[in-house]
Amino acid sequence: MPSRGRLRPLGLHEVTLRPGFWQRRQEVNRSATLAHVEHWLERAGWLGNFEAAPAERRGREFADSEVYKLLEAMAWELGPAPDAELDARYRAIAGRVAAAQEPDGYLNTNFGRPGQRPRYSDLEWGHELYCYGHLIQAAVARARTFGVDELVGVAIRAADHVCDVFGPGGIASVCGHPEIEPALVELYRVTGEHRYLEQARLFVERRGRGTLADIGFGRSYFQDDLPVRAADVLRGHAVRATYLAAGAVDVAMETGDGELLNSVTRQWRNTVARRTYLTGGMGSRHQDEAFGEDFALPPDRAYSETCAGIGSVMLSWRLLLAHGDPRYADLIERTLFNVVATAVSGDGTRFFYTNTLHQRVLGTEPPAGAIVPRAASTLRAPWFEVSCCPTNLARTFASLAAYLATSDDDGLQLHQYAAARIRTALPDGREIGLEVATDYPATGRITIRITETPDTPWTLSLRVPHWAGGATLDGLTVSPGNARLRRRFSAGDVIELDLAVRPRLTGADARIDAVRGCVAIERGPVVYCVESVDLPAHVSLDALRLDPAVPLSESAEGVVASCRIVSPADQEWPYPAPSREAGARSADVILRPYHGWAGRGPSTMRVWIPAG
Amino acid sequence: MPSRGRLRPLGLHEVTLRPGFWQRRQEVNRSATLAHVEHWLERAGWLGNFEAAPAERRGREFADSEVYKLLEAMAWELGPAPDAELDARYRAIAGRVAAAQEPDGYLNTNFGRPGQRPRYSDLEWGHELYCYGHLIQAAVARARTFGVDELVGVAIRAADHVCDVFGPGGIASVCGHPEIEPALVELYRVTGEHRYLEQARLFVERRGRGTLADIGFGRSYFQDDLPVRAADVLRGHAVRATYLAAGAVDVAMETGDGELLNSVTRQWRNTVARRTYLTGGMGSRHQDEAFGEDFALPPDRAYSETCAGIGSVMLSWRLLLAHGDPRYADLIERTLFNVVATAVSGDGTRFFYTNTLHQRVLGTEPPAGAIVPRAASTLRAPWFEVSCCPTNLARTFASLAAYLATSDDDGLQLHQYAAARIRTALPDGREIGLEVATDYPATGRITIRITETPDTPWTLSLRVPHWAGGATLDGLTVSPGNARLRRRFSAGDVIELDLAVRPRLTGADARIDAVRGCVAIERGPVVYCVESVDLPAHVSLDALRLDPAVPLSESAEGVVASCRIVSPADQEWPYPAPSREAGARSADVILRPYHGWAGRGPSTMRVWIPAG
Repeated sequence: MPSRGRLRPLGLHEVTLRPGFWQRRQEVNRSATLAHVEHWLERAGWLGNFEAAPAERRGREFADSEVYKLLEAMAWELGPAPDAELDARYRAIAGRVAAAQEPDGYLNTNFGRPGQRPRYSDLEWGHELYCYGHLIQAAVARARTFGVDELVGVAIRAADHVCDVFGPGGIASVCGHPEIEPALVELYRVTGEHRYLEQARLFVERRGRGTLADIGFGRSYFQDDLPVRAADVLRGHAVRATYLAAGAVDVAMETGDGELLNSVTRQWRNTVARRTYLTGGMGSRHQDEAFGEDFALPPDRAYSETCAGIGSVMLSWRLLLAHGDPRYADLIERTLFNVVATAVSGDGTRFFYTNTLHQRVLGTEPPAGAIVPRAASTLRAPWFEVSCCPTNLARTFASLAAYLATSDDDGLQLHQYAAARIRTALPDGREIGLEVATDYPATGRITIRITETPDTPWTLSLRVPHWAGGATLDGLTVSPGNARLRRRFSAGDVIELDLAVRPRLTGADARIDAVRGCVAIERGPVVYCVESVDLPAHVSLDALRLDPAVPLSESAEGVVASCRIVSPADQEWPYPAPSREAGARSADVILRPYHGWAGRGPSTMRVWIPAG
Repeated sequence: MPSRGRLRPLGLHEVTLRPGFWQRRQEVNRSATLAHVEHWLERAGWLGNFEAAPAERRGREFADSEVYKLLEAMAWELGPAPDAELDARYRAIAGRVAAAQEPDGYLNTNFGRPGQRPRYSDLEWGHELYCYGHLIQAAVARARTFGVDELVGVAIRAADHVCDVFGPGGIASVCGHPEIEPALVELYRVTGEHRYLEQARLFVERRGRGTLADIGFGRSYFQDDLPVRAADVLRGHAVRATYLAAGAVDVAMETGDGELLNSVTRQWRNTVARRTYLTGGMGSRHQDEAFGEDFALPPDRAYSETCAGIGSVMLSWRLLLAHGDPRYADLIERTLFNVVATAVSGDGTRFFYTNTLHQRVLGTEPPAGAIVPRAASTLRAPWFEVSCCPTNLARTFASLAAYLATSDDDGLQLHQYAAARIRTALPDGREIGLEVATDYPATGRITIRITETPDTPWTLSLRVPHWAGGATLDGLTVSPGNARLRRRFSAGDVIELDLAVRPRLTGADARIDAVRGCVAIERGPVVYCVESVDLPAHVSLDALRLDPAVPLSESAEGVVASCRIVSPADQEWPYPAPSREAGARSADVILRPYHGWAGRGPSTMRVWIPAG
């Protein structure tokens, strides 16, 4: 855990989700996604790579990391809820990984053996350090929830090897895909071994000085264009950018490097103000899976990679701990509800790699059992040629409870709202317990019952999201930000927060050209969309003009908006003199949460709807 | 020349450009671009590949084709205007090419020699047949403007080899990049050898049946997803798509295949109605240089590859000859003025590979003498790693005069307006001569003087572009379309056409989401843009709201539009509740032809300007 932040994270044993939106997701993750991922890792041969002869190694450079992410997910699940069968599966996989480690700690199925390229001969694309990063994160999850086991030993030997090879006097370079940076800091936090922190610091400092070879996408692709502390905004490959920034915050917090922290904070602020989708999605470009320029955020073919959303949550979480500012928790909430929740099907076995905000043509069901290209903006698919997203989702859902609350010397902070039981001790030993009851985000009513409290005063801090104008706390209006209750609580005290969840219209900065003249509909933290399957017969998605003067309403189906229905018609040449669209009949149109889109088969879809 | 079309092309010896917009461009091409391209081909080693040892072969798979395109450009230049020095350069290069041909006609510097991959072992990406296509086109240019020479012999041997290897009973496949198809039909037209036509027909028919291996981009990338005659719209890689369609028209015209012609005609119509930029540019996607879905035409990072514009001109020209419909000439004009003319600097030595319609950040001058990546949407560059566009421009400018006019049994048709002398004979031997005097597109006044005429009636047909409402012919109003004058002309007769060139506002089909709420400005055939270098101090391109109610005017600088100036300001989160932009002062803003943009150093630029 970070040493110098404003807030202290809770452990997974301190927060238990209760039935509700996120508990369902986590349960599906545990009961279905873990086995699904394990099945595909075996079937694709990526698990078998750990035993296979070098020439039979399968999958892309980073295939090992998918195995590690599954181990991390299993470890997070096993900690708070032990299960002998799952534990045996975890140990079997960990054993296969351990058997492949070389005596000097090196571990990668794609390099260094006879017939393979030499170790560290392709730092730009080889992902060897990236894979260690995920191995170490899996071990950190296990160490935190269980203790030292075989996998933790493997990760420590790998980390020692990395420090030997890439430390002072060694290879003075970095990995083309950041991830080792936050992982080494986390391992330092778990082990206390200062060498890991120093190595992470070296990796962060080396990047951005033309350390890696130039590539077709340019060095900004892997953030080797500018030193981290000199950059003003996230750029390049969005997953790489968010992972690196997360690692830089970790280094800054552990080394007390205020300049580095300020730099990443500034990058986050500019990225959120100029380079982030309404859903929280990051990275607009298909070509290089990268951030576009400021305000270049087309909903059409938005890339918004699932893993970039997860990277954004990782980064915002670290900045939340560092600063305590509710804006970071606001973005985490937005991203969880609109990227992370979107990227997996209700049954936990199909996934979006990209999360477009506008689907123009009907997607097609992936052929049964087929591995599909990663960026097919179509229906959710069971597995991808590059399958980073399913395993990343698995570890994120498995550790979701950790994002709900934090503590500081004076009390507890609730950042995300879900039905849950929380029990923790403050640094001075005072024990606090509470239960959160809510059907959020269906409604905004959140009931907090104190179940355990010291008889001294402490502060309960409740995030009021930026969109929640009109929220009330125990009947009194509270402004967006952190609402703090400091008092001597008693067991049985009940606090009622109402976040005024109701549908609202949202516009966009005029510089986001691609959505000019459009509005979106949000309700609480949830972005809504309209899908063709919900439209009246013979009405196309292109025909809707939402009338912002008619108040939105709600029905059992979703949010109801009044739209004019126009009649788009082909012209020989689509650039006529400007004209007003002809008047047309009106119709009520149903919008539903974006995170469920394409859940009822192929449909076309829009988040941003032309107003008029 | 095509056998069964409505119109007959003229030869380059029949049309001579006189000083004006296009003659300047052609002169720069001859005097500067040809030598520039030759210099870079030598420097990059792509010319030297024809002598080099196999292991020293340089450049991408298709590097040979750039040499052939230079030869084609030289041949077109040499025909109407012989020049001993240029002829010697042409012959020297042709000799180097000829020396590299194998005894059986095979010719490619990248395959088949010791240490290289075997011939035709990578039809998806190898470009061997594509290279032959450009070799043959160069030879056709030479045969048409000079006669049979060494290069023509090389091309015939190569074509015979292709027929031997890919004919009935041979390799039943196609090339990943179409180009051999139109080339073989052209060679058939020059030589009368029916075998070449049949081979072209086979290549057209084979494609679209899963003939090539599947690739990450999908088979639509090289149009192997659907048979040509089954497709409704162009799709996939835009250069491949337009070249293939051009070849299919050639095959259809020579074989009398009305179904095939109708199919390509339908594809053109749907592509123009739904997948074409205002500039005529085609292909919106960077990732695969491909057409997007219908109406997915973001001006931001528009790919609009120069070569796709040239491919579109090739296709429209063939459909114009087939049908005689002025819509094809309309699109040729639009594309020449707004893609082809844009893609080269005034001095003929720097080029755009992509032609974006919205530049958000200042470009940077390519380092002197550097080869730049192809798709850097920045300033024009002297050469690219993939350098198809400079050579394609060179051959297009060299043959530009051919697009001005055609003939049929009854007379002459003028399709493009430029100062020129035209002299031709109708099939029945009647000789016609005329002079076109105009400063088009600066003004719309076109004066046609008959210099030679039979004493029998014939028809002079003049295209009135679709935008030219209010045009007059000898003082009488004429509608867009073909205006026909049939009479007994006398030498010295003067016809006055006035195309009413004045600035106008243009809108867009509402389904082109990316330009909703914007207008563009056109003037005659020329698309205008606003550049940051023309804005008042302290006004950003993002601040302009063009007031469509204020009439446009003209000044010596360009077109003047009245804009409100708003003040975009960063917000922490760029998606607030919808609101109206605050009132603001107005300013007159200068717009200039898009084809000249970035000609005065780095600037930001917009074609589509928010209205309001």
